[in-house]
Amino acid sequence: MEQVRIKSPGTVANLVCGFDILGLALNDPFDIMEVKLLNEPKVVISNRDDFNLPTDPEKNVAGVVFLAAMEKLNNSEIGFEVIMEKHIKPGSGIGSSAASAAGAAVAANHLLGNIFSKDELVQLAMNGEKLASGVKHADNIAPCILGGLSLIRSIHPLDIISIPAPDLHVTVVHPQIEVRTSDARQILKQQVLLKDAIRQWGNIAGLVTGFMKNDYDLIGRSLEDVIIEPVRSILIPGFDEVKRNCKEAGALGGGISGSGPSIVMLRKEEKTARVEKKVMN
Amino acid sequence: MEQVRIKSPGTVANLVCGFDILGLALNDPFDIMEVKLLNEPKVVISNRDDFNLPTDPEKNVAGVVFLAAMEKLNNSEIGFEVIMEKHIKPGSGIGSSAASAAGAAVAANHLLGNIFSKDELVQLAMNGEKLASGVKHADNIAPCILGGLSLIRSIHPLDIISIPAPDLHVTVVHPQIEVRTSDARQILKQQVLLKDAIRQWGNIAGLVTGFMKNDYDLIGRSLEDVIIEPVRSILIPGFDEVKRNCKEAGALGGGISGSGPSIVMLRKEEKTARVEKKVMN
Repeated sequence: MEQVRIKSPGTVANLVCGFDILGLALNDPFDIMEVKLLNEPKVVISNRDDFNLPTDPEKNVAGVVFLAAMEKLNNSEIGFEVIMEKHIKPGSGIGSSAASAAGAAVAANHLLGNIFSKDELVQLAMNGEKLASGVKHADNIAPCILGGLSLIRSIHPLDIISIPAPDLHVTVVHPQIEVRTSDARQILKQQVLLKDAIRQWGNIAGLVTGFMKNDYDLIGRSLEDVIIEPVRSILIPGFDEVKRNCKEAGALGGGISGSGPSIVMLRKEEKTARVEKKVMN
Repeated sequence: MEQVRIKSPGTVANLVCGFDILGLALNDPFDIMEVKLLNEPKVVISNRDDFNLPTDPEKNVAGVVFLAAMEKLNNSEIGFEVIMEKHIKPGSGIGSSAASAAGAAVAANHLLGNIFSKDELVQLAMNGEKLASGVKHADNIAPCILGGLSLIRSIHPLDIISIPAPDLHVTVVHPQIEVRTSDARQILKQQVLLKDAIRQWGNIAGLVTGFMKNDYDLIGRSLEDVIIEPVRSILIPGFDEVKRNCKEAGALGGGISGSGPSIVMLRKEEKTARVEKKVMN
Protein backbone atom coordinates (compact mmCIF):
# COMPACT_ATOMS: atom_id res chain seq x y z
CA MET A 1 0.00 0.00 0.00
CA GLU A 2 1.76 3.14 -1.21
CA GLN A 3 -1.10 5.60 -0.91
CA VAL A 4 -3.76 6.07 1.72
CA ARG A 5 -6.76 8.34 2.22
CA ILE A 6 -7.81 8.87 5.79
CA LYS A 7 -10.50 10.70 7.73
CA SER A 8 -9.33 12.33 10.91
CA PRO A 9 -12.12 13.47 13.24
CA GLY A 10 -12.63 16.50 15.42
CA THR A 11 -12.29 15.91 19.15
CA VAL A 12 -13.34 17.55 22.40
CA ALA A 13 -10.57 17.81 24.99
CA ASN A 14 -10.79 18.87 28.65
CA LEU A 15 -14.24 17.30 28.85
CA VAL A 16 -15.80 19.64 31.47
CA CYS A 17 -14.47 18.31 34.80
CA GLY A 18 -11.81 16.22 32.98
CA PHE A 19 -9.29 19.01 32.36
CA ASP A 20 -6.14 17.61 30.71
CA ILE A 21 -7.27 13.98 31.11
CA LEU A 22 -10.51 13.30 29.19
CA GLY A 23 -11.25 13.70 25.50
CA LEU A 24 -13.82 12.34 23.08
CA ALA A 25 -13.95 11.88 19.31
CA LEU A 26 -16.72 13.31 17.16
CA ASN A 27 -18.20 11.55 14.14
CA ASP A 28 -18.24 14.80 12.24
CA PRO A 29 -16.54 17.05 11.15
CA PHE A 30 -13.37 15.35 9.98
CA ASP A 31 -10.37 16.27 7.89
CA ILE A 32 -9.38 14.24 4.85
CA MET A 33 -5.73 13.52 4.16
CA GLU A 34 -4.31 11.75 1.10
CA VAL A 35 -0.83 10.51 1.85
CA LYS A 36 1.68 8.89 -0.48
CA LEU A 37 4.95 7.17 0.41
CA LEU A 38 8.03 8.67 -1.26
CA ASN A 39 11.39 6.97 -1.70
CA GLU A 40 13.42 10.00 -0.71
CA PRO A 41 13.67 11.76 2.65
CA LYS A 42 11.36 14.73 2.17
CA VAL A 43 7.88 15.87 3.10
CA VAL A 44 5.74 17.57 0.47
CA ILE A 45 2.56 19.30 1.59
CA SER A 46 -0.25 20.82 -0.43
CA ASN A 47 -3.59 22.18 0.71
CA ARG A 48 -7.00 21.52 -0.82
CA ASP A 49 -8.84 23.96 1.43
CA ASP A 50 -9.02 27.68 2.18
CA PHE A 51 -7.19 27.85 5.49
CA ASN A 52 -3.79 28.83 4.01
CA LEU A 53 -1.87 26.71 6.50
CA PRO A 54 1.93 26.66 6.01
CA THR A 55 3.27 24.07 3.59
CA ASP A 56 6.81 24.16 4.99
CA PRO A 57 6.93 20.79 6.82
CA GLU A 58 8.84 22.29 9.75
CA LYS A 59 5.98 24.76 10.30
CA ASN A 60 3.09 22.43 9.51
CA VAL A 61 1.44 20.34 12.23
CA ALA A 62 1.17 17.25 10.02
CA GLY A 63 4.62 17.99 8.57
CA VAL A 64 6.47 17.78 11.88
CA VAL A 65 4.75 14.46 12.61
CA PHE A 66 5.90 12.99 9.29
CA LEU A 67 9.41 14.30 10.02
CA ALA A 68 9.32 12.71 13.49
CA ALA A 69 8.23 9.39 12.00
CA MET A 70 11.13 9.57 9.50
CA GLU A 71 13.59 10.37 12.26
CA LYS A 72 12.29 7.48 14.34
CA LEU A 73 12.71 5.10 11.38
CA ASN A 74 16.18 6.39 10.62
CA ASN A 75 15.75 5.35 6.99
CA SER A 76 16.99 7.85 4.42
CA GLU A 77 14.88 6.35 1.62
CA ILE A 78 11.50 7.25 3.02
CA GLY A 79 9.41 10.41 2.73
CA PHE A 80 5.78 11.49 2.50
CA GLU A 81 3.60 13.56 0.21
CA VAL A 82 0.31 14.76 1.61
CA ILE A 83 -2.73 16.58 0.29
CA MET A 84 -4.57 18.17 3.23
CA GLU A 85 -8.29 18.79 2.97
CA LYS A 86 -9.19 20.33 6.30
CA HIS A 87 -12.81 20.71 7.34
CA ILE A 88 -12.10 21.38 11.02
CA LYS A 89 -11.50 25.08 11.28
CA PRO A 90 -8.23 25.94 13.06
CA GLY A 91 -8.91 27.62 16.40
CA SER A 92 -12.46 26.31 16.65
CA GLY A 93 -11.74 24.39 19.85
CA ILE A 94 -12.47 20.91 18.53
CA GLY A 95 -8.97 19.67 17.93
CA SER A 96 -8.08 20.93 14.47
CA SER A 97 -4.33 20.59 15.05
CA ALA A 98 -4.77 17.18 16.67
CA ALA A 99 -6.68 15.96 13.61
CA SER A 100 -3.76 16.95 11.36
CA ALA A 101 -1.16 15.49 13.73
CA ALA A 102 -2.98 12.24 14.51
CA GLY A 103 -3.96 11.83 10.87
CA ALA A 104 -0.31 12.13 9.82
CA ALA A 105 0.80 9.55 12.39
CA VAL A 106 -1.93 7.06 11.46
CA ALA A 107 -1.40 7.53 7.71
CA ALA A 108 2.37 7.10 8.01
CA ASN A 109 1.89 3.99 10.09
CA HIS A 110 -0.45 2.42 7.52
CA LEU A 111 1.98 3.15 4.69
CA LEU A 112 4.86 1.66 6.68
CA GLY A 113 3.00 -1.58 7.43
CA ASN A 114 1.67 -0.81 10.92
CA ILE A 115 5.01 -0.79 12.67
CA PHE A 116 4.09 1.61 15.47
CA SER A 117 2.13 0.81 18.63
CA LYS A 118 -0.78 3.01 19.66
CA ASP A 119 1.37 4.65 22.30
CA GLU A 120 4.03 5.36 19.66
CA LEU A 121 1.39 6.90 17.39
CA VAL A 122 0.28 9.18 20.22
CA GLN A 123 3.90 10.11 20.95
CA LEU A 124 4.55 10.90 17.29
CA ALA A 125 1.38 12.96 16.96
CA MET A 126 2.14 14.97 20.10
CA ASN A 127 4.97 16.59 18.12
CA GLY A 128 2.25 18.32 16.11
CA GLU A 129 0.51 19.55 19.26
CA LYS A 130 3.83 20.85 20.51
CA LEU A 131 4.18 22.93 17.34
CA ALA A 132 0.58 24.17 17.53
CA SER A 133 0.34 25.08 21.20
CA GLY A 134 3.80 24.76 22.71
CA VAL A 135 2.66 21.85 24.90
CA LYS A 136 2.75 18.10 24.24
CA HIS A 137 -0.77 17.21 25.32
CA ALA A 138 -2.68 14.10 24.29
CA ASP A 139 -6.30 14.76 25.20
CA ASN A 140 -7.25 15.50 21.58
CA ILE A 141 -4.66 13.17 20.02
CA ALA A 142 -5.70 10.06 21.96
CA PRO A 143 -9.43 10.07 21.13
CA CYS A 144 -8.61 11.14 17.55
CA ILE A 145 -6.54 7.96 17.14
CA LEU A 146 -8.51 5.56 19.35
CA GLY A 147 -12.06 6.87 18.82
CA GLY A 148 -14.70 7.23 21.52
CA LEU A 149 -13.73 8.46 24.94
CA SER A 150 -10.10 8.45 26.08
CA LEU A 151 -8.60 8.87 29.52
CA ILE A 152 -5.04 10.20 29.58
CA ARG A 153 -4.17 9.04 33.09
CA SER A 154 -0.60 10.18 32.70
CA ILE A 155 1.65 11.74 30.07
CA HIS A 156 4.94 10.78 31.78
CA PRO A 157 4.85 7.82 31.41
CA LEU A 158 2.16 7.75 28.73
CA ASP A 159 -0.91 5.87 30.02
CA ILE A 160 -3.99 6.04 27.81
CA ILE A 161 -7.17 4.09 28.50
CA SER A 162 -10.31 3.81 26.37
CA ILE A 163 -13.46 4.27 28.43
CA PRO A 164 -16.66 2.66 27.16
CA ALA A 165 -19.46 5.21 26.80
CA PRO A 166 -22.96 5.31 25.38
CA ASP A 167 -23.70 7.20 22.18
CA LEU A 168 -24.07 10.87 22.90
CA HIS A 169 -25.26 13.76 20.82
CA VAL A 170 -22.70 16.53 20.96
CA THR A 171 -23.53 20.16 20.25
CA VAL A 172 -20.62 22.53 19.73
CA VAL A 173 -21.41 26.23 19.89
CA HIS A 174 -18.66 28.23 18.26
CA PRO A 175 -18.52 31.93 19.12
CA GLN A 176 -16.91 34.04 16.39
CA ILE A 177 -14.02 35.15 18.55
CA GLU A 178 -10.51 33.80 18.91
CA VAL A 179 -9.04 32.58 22.19
CA ARG A 180 -5.37 31.68 21.95
CA THR A 181 -4.52 28.42 23.74
CA SER A 182 -1.49 30.10 25.28
CA ASP A 183 -3.68 32.90 26.73
CA ALA A 184 -6.20 30.35 28.00
CA ARG A 185 -3.35 28.53 29.74
CA GLN A 186 -1.81 31.67 31.18
CA ILE A 187 -4.89 32.85 33.07
CA LEU A 188 -5.20 29.58 35.00
CA LYS A 189 -4.15 29.77 38.63
CA GLN A 190 -1.20 27.58 39.55
CA GLN A 191 -2.85 26.75 42.86
CA VAL A 192 -6.39 25.64 43.57
CA LEU A 193 -8.35 25.13 46.78
CA LEU A 194 -8.21 21.56 48.08
CA LYS A 195 -11.98 21.62 48.60
CA ASP A 196 -12.51 22.54 44.94
CA ALA A 197 -10.09 19.83 43.83
CA ILE A 198 -12.04 17.28 45.91
CA ARG A 199 -15.31 18.39 44.31
CA GLN A 200 -13.69 18.10 40.88
CA TRP A 201 -12.37 14.59 41.42
CA GLY A 202 -15.75 13.52 42.79
CA ASN A 203 -17.27 14.77 39.55
CA ILE A 204 -14.66 13.01 37.43
CA ALA A 205 -15.27 9.72 39.21
CA GLY A 206 -19.01 10.30 38.74
CA LEU A 207 -18.61 11.11 35.05
CA VAL A 208 -16.51 8.01 34.33
CA THR A 209 -18.94 5.82 36.31
CA GLY A 210 -21.89 7.39 34.50
CA PHE A 211 -20.32 6.69 31.09
CA MET A 212 -19.51 3.08 31.98
CA LYS A 213 -22.96 2.44 33.51
CA ASN A 214 -24.83 4.27 30.72
CA ASP A 215 -26.33 6.40 33.51
CA TYR A 216 -27.27 9.63 31.77
CA ASP A 217 -28.54 11.33 34.94
CA LEU A 218 -25.22 10.69 36.65
CA ILE A 219 -23.37 11.97 33.57
CA GLY A 220 -25.46 15.12 33.78
CA ARG A 221 -24.90 15.66 37.50
CA SER A 222 -21.15 15.13 37.07
CA LEU A 223 -20.73 17.56 34.17
CA GLU A 224 -19.60 20.35 36.50
CA ASP A 225 -16.21 22.07 36.44
CA VAL A 226 -15.49 24.16 39.53
CA ILE A 227 -11.83 24.84 38.71
CA ILE A 228 -11.14 25.73 35.08
CA GLU A 229 -14.51 26.97 33.83
CA PRO A 230 -14.95 29.80 36.38
CA VAL A 231 -11.63 31.25 35.18
CA ARG A 232 -11.73 30.59 31.45
CA SER A 233 -15.39 31.31 30.82
CA ILE A 234 -14.62 34.99 31.43
CA LEU A 235 -12.91 34.96 28.01
CA ILE A 236 -16.14 33.78 26.33
CA PRO A 237 -18.92 36.41 26.10
CA GLY A 238 -22.36 34.90 26.66
CA PHE A 239 -20.98 31.64 28.04
CA ASP A 240 -23.41 31.31 30.97
CA GLU A 241 -26.39 32.18 28.80
CA VAL A 242 -25.53 29.64 26.10
CA LYS A 243 -25.02 26.95 28.70
CA ARG A 244 -28.28 27.78 30.45
CA ASN A 245 -30.24 27.82 27.20
CA CYS A 246 -28.79 24.47 26.11
CA LYS A 247 -29.64 22.89 29.46
CA GLU A 248 -33.16 24.26 29.31
CA ALA A 249 -33.43 22.71 25.85
CA GLY A 250 -32.60 19.30 27.31
CA ALA A 251 -28.81 19.03 27.32
CA LEU A 252 -27.29 16.88 30.10
CA GLY A 253 -24.63 19.52 30.66
CA GLY A 254 -21.41 20.77 29.19
CA GLY A 255 -18.74 23.41 29.31
CA ILE A 256 -15.76 24.79 27.44
CA SER A 257 -14.45 22.63 24.59
CA GLY A 258 -10.67 22.36 24.72
CA SER A 259 -9.31 25.76 25.69
CA GLY A 260 -12.31 27.46 24.12
CA PRO A 261 -13.93 29.57 22.83
CA SER A 262 -16.21 26.74 21.69
CA ILE A 263 -18.81 25.47 24.11
CA VAL A 264 -19.66 21.78 24.10
CA MET A 265 -22.97 20.39 25.33
CA LEU A 266 -23.87 16.70 25.63
CA ARG A 267 -27.35 15.29 25.07
CA LYS A 268 -28.71 11.81 25.13
CA GLU A 269 -31.32 12.18 22.44
CA GLU A 270 -29.70 11.06 19.24
CA LYS A 271 -28.27 7.64 18.54
CA THR A 272 -25.07 8.90 16.99
CA ALA A 273 -22.86 11.82 17.84
CA ARG A 274 -22.74 14.69 15.45
CA VAL A 275 -21.79 18.33 15.57
CA GLU A 276 -24.10 21.26 15.13
CA LYS A 277 -22.26 24.42 14.37
CA LYS A 278 -24.05 27.48 15.58
CA VAL A 279 -23.04 31.09 15.56
CA MET A 280 -23.66 33.12 18.67
CA ASN A 281 -25.36 36.49 18.35
CA MET B 1 -39.92 -7.48 64.16
CA GLU B 2 -39.09 -5.91 67.54
CA GLN B 3 -35.48 -7.03 67.88
CA VAL B 4 -32.66 -7.22 65.37
CA ARG B 5 -29.05 -8.41 65.40
CA ILE B 6 -26.83 -6.83 62.80
CA LYS B 7 -23.25 -7.04 61.61
CA SER B 8 -21.67 -3.73 60.70
CA PRO B 9 -18.39 -4.00 58.79
CA GLY B 10 -15.14 -2.10 58.86
CA THR B 11 -14.53 0.24 55.93
CA VAL B 12 -11.62 1.96 54.23
CA ALA B 13 -12.22 5.63 53.44
CA ASN B 14 -10.08 8.02 51.38
CA LEU B 15 -9.11 5.14 49.12
CA VAL B 16 -5.60 6.32 48.13
CA CYS B 17 -6.23 8.90 45.37
CA GLY B 18 -9.94 9.07 46.30
CA PHE B 19 -9.63 11.41 49.29
CA ASP B 20 -13.08 12.27 50.67
CA ILE B 21 -14.92 10.54 47.82
CA LEU B 22 -14.13 6.79 47.69
CA GLY B 23 -14.63 4.14 50.36
CA LEU B 24 -14.90 0.37 50.41
CA ALA B 25 -16.43 -2.16 52.80
CA LEU B 26 -14.44 -5.04 54.31
CA ASN B 27 -15.86 -8.51 54.94
CA ASP B 28 -14.11 -8.65 58.27
CA PRO B 29 -13.84 -7.35 61.00
CA PHE B 30 -17.38 -6.29 61.85
CA ASP B 31 -19.22 -5.06 64.93
CA ILE B 32 -22.29 -6.85 66.22
CA MET B 33 -25.25 -4.83 67.49
CA GLU B 34 -28.40 -6.21 69.09
CA VAL B 35 -31.13 -3.61 68.96
CA LYS B 36 -34.60 -3.71 70.49
CA LEU B 37 -37.50 -1.32 69.90
CA LEU B 38 -38.82 0.38 73.06
CA ASN B 39 -42.21 2.03 73.48
CA GLU B 40 -40.88 5.07 75.29
CA PRO B 41 -38.60 7.85 74.02
CA LYS B 42 -35.23 6.81 75.39
CA VAL B 43 -31.99 5.20 74.23
CA VAL B 44 -30.36 2.58 76.44
CA ILE B 45 -26.82 1.50 75.61
CA SER B 46 -24.73 -1.29 77.08
CA ASN B 47 -21.36 -2.60 75.95
CA ARG B 48 -20.33 -6.22 75.52
CA ASP B 49 -16.67 -5.44 74.77
CA ASP B 50 -13.61 -3.93 76.43
CA PHE B 51 -13.48 -0.53 74.75
CA ASN B 52 -15.28 1.36 77.55
CA LEU B 53 -17.14 3.59 75.11
CA PRO B 54 -19.61 6.05 76.69
CA THR B 55 -23.12 4.74 77.29
CA ASP B 56 -24.69 8.19 77.55
CA PRO B 57 -26.59 8.32 74.22
CA GLU B 58 -25.65 11.98 73.68
CA LYS B 59 -21.98 11.00 73.82
CA ASN B 60 -22.20 7.68 72.00
CA VAL B 61 -21.82 7.45 68.21
CA ALA B 62 -24.66 4.93 67.84
CA GLY B 63 -26.67 6.81 70.48
CA VAL B 64 -26.82 10.09 68.59
CA VAL B 65 -27.96 8.23 65.48
CA PHE B 66 -30.84 6.59 67.36
CA LEU B 67 -31.73 10.02 68.81
CA ALA B 68 -31.66 11.54 65.31
CA ALA B 69 -33.95 8.78 64.01
CA MET B 70 -36.37 9.45 66.90
CA GLU B 71 -36.33 13.16 66.21
CA LYS B 72 -36.95 12.56 62.53
CA LEU B 73 -39.94 10.31 63.36
CA ASN B 74 -41.35 12.82 65.83
CA ASN B 75 -43.08 9.96 67.68
CA SER B 76 -42.85 10.09 71.47
CA GLU B 77 -43.62 6.38 71.87
CA ILE B 78 -40.47 5.06 70.27
CA GLY B 79 -37.04 4.35 71.71
CA PHE B 80 -34.14 1.92 71.30
CA GLU B 81 -32.11 -0.40 73.48
CA VAL B 82 -28.79 -1.57 72.09
CA ILE B 83 -26.10 -4.00 73.14
CA MET B 84 -22.85 -3.07 71.38
CA GLU B 85 -20.25 -5.73 70.70
CA LYS B 86 -17.48 -3.88 68.93
CA HIS B 87 -14.68 -5.78 67.20
CA ILE B 88 -13.39 -2.84 65.18
CA LYS B 89 -10.97 -1.06 67.45
CA PRO B 90 -11.69 2.67 67.77
CA GLY B 91 -8.92 4.75 66.17
CA SER B 92 -7.69 1.89 63.99
CA GLY B 93 -8.42 3.76 60.75
CA ILE B 94 -10.98 1.31 59.35
CA GLY B 95 -14.19 3.11 60.22
CA SER B 96 -14.95 2.05 63.77
CA SER B 97 -17.24 5.02 64.42
CA ALA B 98 -18.92 4.61 61.03
CA ALA B 99 -19.71 0.97 61.84
CA SER B 100 -21.50 2.05 65.04
CA ALA B 101 -23.30 4.92 63.33
CA ALA B 102 -24.31 3.05 60.18
CA GLY B 103 -25.27 -0.02 62.23
CA ALA B 104 -27.57 2.11 64.38
CA ALA B 105 -29.26 3.66 61.34
CA VAL B 106 -29.74 0.32 59.58
CA ALA B 107 -30.99 -1.43 62.74
CA ALA B 108 -33.45 1.35 63.55
CA ASN B 109 -34.72 1.28 59.99
CA HIS B 110 -35.33 -2.47 60.10
CA LEU B 111 -37.21 -2.18 63.39
CA LEU B 112 -39.34 0.64 62.03
CA GLY B 113 -40.34 -1.27 58.91
CA ASN B 114 -37.81 0.10 56.40
CA ILE B 115 -39.22 3.60 56.28
CA PHE B 116 -35.97 5.39 55.41
CA SER B 117 -34.33 5.62 51.98
CA LYS B 118 -30.63 4.84 51.61
CA ASP B 119 -29.84 8.54 51.42
CA GLU B 120 -31.78 9.10 54.65
CA LEU B 121 -29.85 6.27 56.32
CA VAL B 122 -26.58 7.92 55.29
CA GLN B 123 -27.82 11.29 56.54
CA LEU B 124 -28.86 9.79 59.89
CA ALA B 125 -25.58 7.93 60.31
CA MET B 126 -23.52 11.03 59.52
CA ASN B 127 -24.70 12.42 62.89
CA GLY B 128 -22.48 9.77 64.48
CA GLU B 129 -19.49 10.79 62.36
CA LYS B 130 -20.10 14.39 63.37
CA LEU B 131 -19.87 13.36 67.03
CA ALA B 132 -16.75 11.25 66.44
CA SER B 133 -14.69 13.58 64.26
CA GLY B 134 -16.52 16.91 64.13
CA VAL B 135 -17.20 16.49 60.41
CA LYS B 136 -20.20 14.98 58.64
CA HIS B 137 -18.40 12.80 56.15
CA ALA B 138 -19.87 9.79 54.34
CA ASP B 139 -16.91 7.91 52.90
CA ASN B 140 -17.02 5.26 55.63
CA ILE B 141 -20.79 5.44 56.22
CA ALA B 142 -21.79 4.90 52.58
CA PRO B 143 -19.83 1.66 51.93
CA CYS B 144 -20.75 0.42 55.43
CA ILE B 145 -24.44 0.68 54.50
CA LEU B 146 -24.27 -0.17 50.78
CA GLY B 147 -21.38 -2.67 50.77
CA GLY B 148 -18.64 -2.86 48.15
CA LEU B 149 -17.15 0.32 46.74
CA SER B 150 -18.95 3.66 47.13
CA LEU B 151 -18.39 6.97 45.43
CA ILE B 152 -19.51 10.02 47.37
CA ARG B 153 -19.71 12.42 44.44
CA SER B 154 -21.14 15.15 46.61
CA ILE B 155 -22.24 15.70 50.21
CA HIS B 156 -24.32 18.83 49.49
CA PRO B 157 -26.54 17.59 47.95
CA LEU B 158 -25.88 13.99 48.92
CA ASP B 159 -25.00 11.92 45.83
CA ILE B 160 -23.77 8.40 46.48
CA ILE B 161 -23.07 5.88 43.74
CA SER B 162 -22.12 2.20 44.04
CA ILE B 163 -19.21 1.32 41.78
CA PRO B 164 -18.89 -2.30 40.63
CA ALA B 165 -15.49 -3.75 41.51
CA PRO B 166 -13.80 -7.13 41.41
CA ASP B 167 -13.07 -9.02 44.63
CA LEU B 168 -9.91 -7.68 46.22
CA HIS B 169 -7.79 -8.90 49.07
CA VAL B 170 -7.26 -6.06 51.52
CA THR B 171 -4.37 -5.95 53.95
CA VAL B 172 -4.54 -3.38 56.73
CA VAL B 173 -1.31 -2.70 58.59
CA HIS B 174 -2.04 -1.03 61.90
CA PRO B 175 0.87 0.76 63.60
CA GLN B 176 0.52 0.94 67.37
CA ILE B 177 0.33 4.72 67.44
CA GLU B 178 -2.61 7.08 67.54
CA VAL B 179 -3.30 9.75 64.92
CA ARG B 180 -6.22 11.99 65.77
CA THR B 181 -8.50 12.68 62.81
CA SER B 182 -8.56 16.36 63.72
CA ASP B 183 -4.72 16.52 63.64
CA ALA B 184 -4.67 14.64 60.34
CA ARG B 185 -7.12 17.20 58.94
CA GLN B 186 -5.26 20.19 60.31
CA ILE B 187 -1.93 19.47 58.62
CA LEU B 188 -3.47 19.36 55.17
CA LYS B 189 -2.75 22.36 52.99
CA GLN B 190 -5.80 24.39 51.99
CA GLN B 191 -4.32 24.93 48.56
CA VAL B 192 -2.77 22.43 46.19
CA LEU B 193 -0.89 22.79 42.92
CA LEU B 194 -3.13 22.55 39.86
CA LYS B 195 -0.66 20.13 38.26
CA ASP B 196 -0.91 17.82 41.27
CA ALA B 197 -4.70 18.05 41.25
CA ILE B 198 -4.70 17.08 37.56
CA ARG B 199 -2.47 14.07 38.27
CA GLN B 200 -4.80 13.08 41.12
CA TRP B 201 -7.97 13.25 39.05
CA GLY B 202 -6.28 11.28 36.28
CA ASN B 203 -5.56 8.61 38.87
CA ILE B 204 -9.11 8.66 40.21
CA ALA B 205 -10.54 8.27 36.72
CA GLY B 206 -8.04 5.42 36.15
CA LEU B 207 -8.94 3.74 39.44
CA VAL B 208 -12.68 3.84 38.76
CA THR B 209 -12.16 2.59 35.20
CA GLY B 210 -9.87 -0.17 36.50
CA PHE B 211 -12.47 -1.30 39.03
CA MET B 212 -15.27 -1.33 36.48
CA LYS B 213 -13.17 -3.11 33.82
CA ASN B 214 -11.65 -5.59 36.31
CA ASP B 215 -8.28 -4.31 35.09
CA TYR B 216 -5.94 -5.03 37.99
CA ASP B 217 -2.89 -3.50 36.30
CA LEU B 218 -4.75 -0.24 35.81
CA ILE B 219 -5.96 -0.34 39.43
CA GLY B 220 -2.34 -0.76 40.49
CA ARG B 221 -1.05 2.08 38.30
CA SER B 222 -3.80 4.38 39.55
CA LEU B 223 -3.25 3.71 43.28
CA GLU B 224 -1.13 6.83 43.64
CA ASP B 225 -1.90 9.81 45.87
CA VAL B 226 0.23 12.87 45.15
CA ILE B 227 -1.73 15.26 47.39
CA ILE B 228 -2.71 13.85 50.79
CA GLU B 229 -0.20 11.03 51.32
CA PRO B 230 2.96 13.16 51.03
CA VAL B 231 1.64 15.32 53.89
CA ARG B 232 -0.03 12.77 56.15
CA SER B 233 2.46 9.93 55.82
CA ILE B 234 4.89 12.05 57.86
CA LEU B 235 2.71 11.21 60.89
CA ILE B 236 3.21 7.48 60.30
CA PRO B 237 6.69 6.15 61.12
CA GLY B 238 7.84 3.48 58.65
CA PHE B 239 5.10 4.29 56.13
CA ASP B 240 7.31 4.19 53.02
CA GLU B 241 8.99 0.96 54.10
CA VAL B 242 5.71 -0.85 54.81
CA LYS B 243 4.32 0.25 51.46
CA ARG B 244 7.46 -0.80 49.59
CA ASN B 245 7.56 -4.19 51.32
CA CYS B 246 3.89 -4.86 50.57
CA LYS B 247 4.37 -3.94 46.90
CA GLU B 248 7.43 -6.16 46.66
CA ALA B 249 5.28 -8.94 48.13
CA GLY B 250 2.79 -8.54 45.28
CA ALA B 251 0.33 -5.86 46.39
CA LEU B 252 -1.20 -3.75 43.61
CA GLY B 253 -0.68 -0.64 45.69
CA GLY B 254 -2.20 1.22 48.59
CA GLY B 255 -1.81 4.07 51.00
CA ILE B 256 -3.21 5.55 54.18
CA SER B 257 -6.52 4.09 55.35
CA GLY B 258 -8.91 6.85 56.38
CA SER B 259 -6.92 9.51 58.18
CA GLY B 260 -4.41 6.90 59.35
CA PRO B 261 -2.36 5.63 61.02
CA SER B 262 -3.45 2.36 59.35
CA ILE B 263 -2.01 1.54 55.96
CA VAL B 264 -4.20 -0.26 53.43
CA MET B 265 -2.84 -2.38 50.61
CA LEU B 266 -4.88 -4.03 47.84
CA ARG B 267 -4.02 -7.36 46.24
CA LYS B 268 -5.73 -9.41 43.60
CA GLU B 269 -4.77 -12.84 44.87
CA GLU B 270 -7.65 -13.99 47.02
CA LYS B 271 -11.23 -14.45 45.87
CA THR B 272 -12.78 -12.65 48.81
CA ALA B 273 -11.65 -9.61 50.72
CA ARG B 274 -10.47 -10.08 54.25
CA VAL B 275 -8.31 -8.15 56.67
CA GLU B 276 -4.96 -9.18 57.99
CA LYS B 277 -4.00 -7.24 61.05
CA LYS B 278 -0.31 -6.86 61.43
CA VAL B 279 1.68 -4.98 63.97
CA MET B 280 4.59 -2.87 62.80
CA ASN B 281 7.95 -3.25 64.50
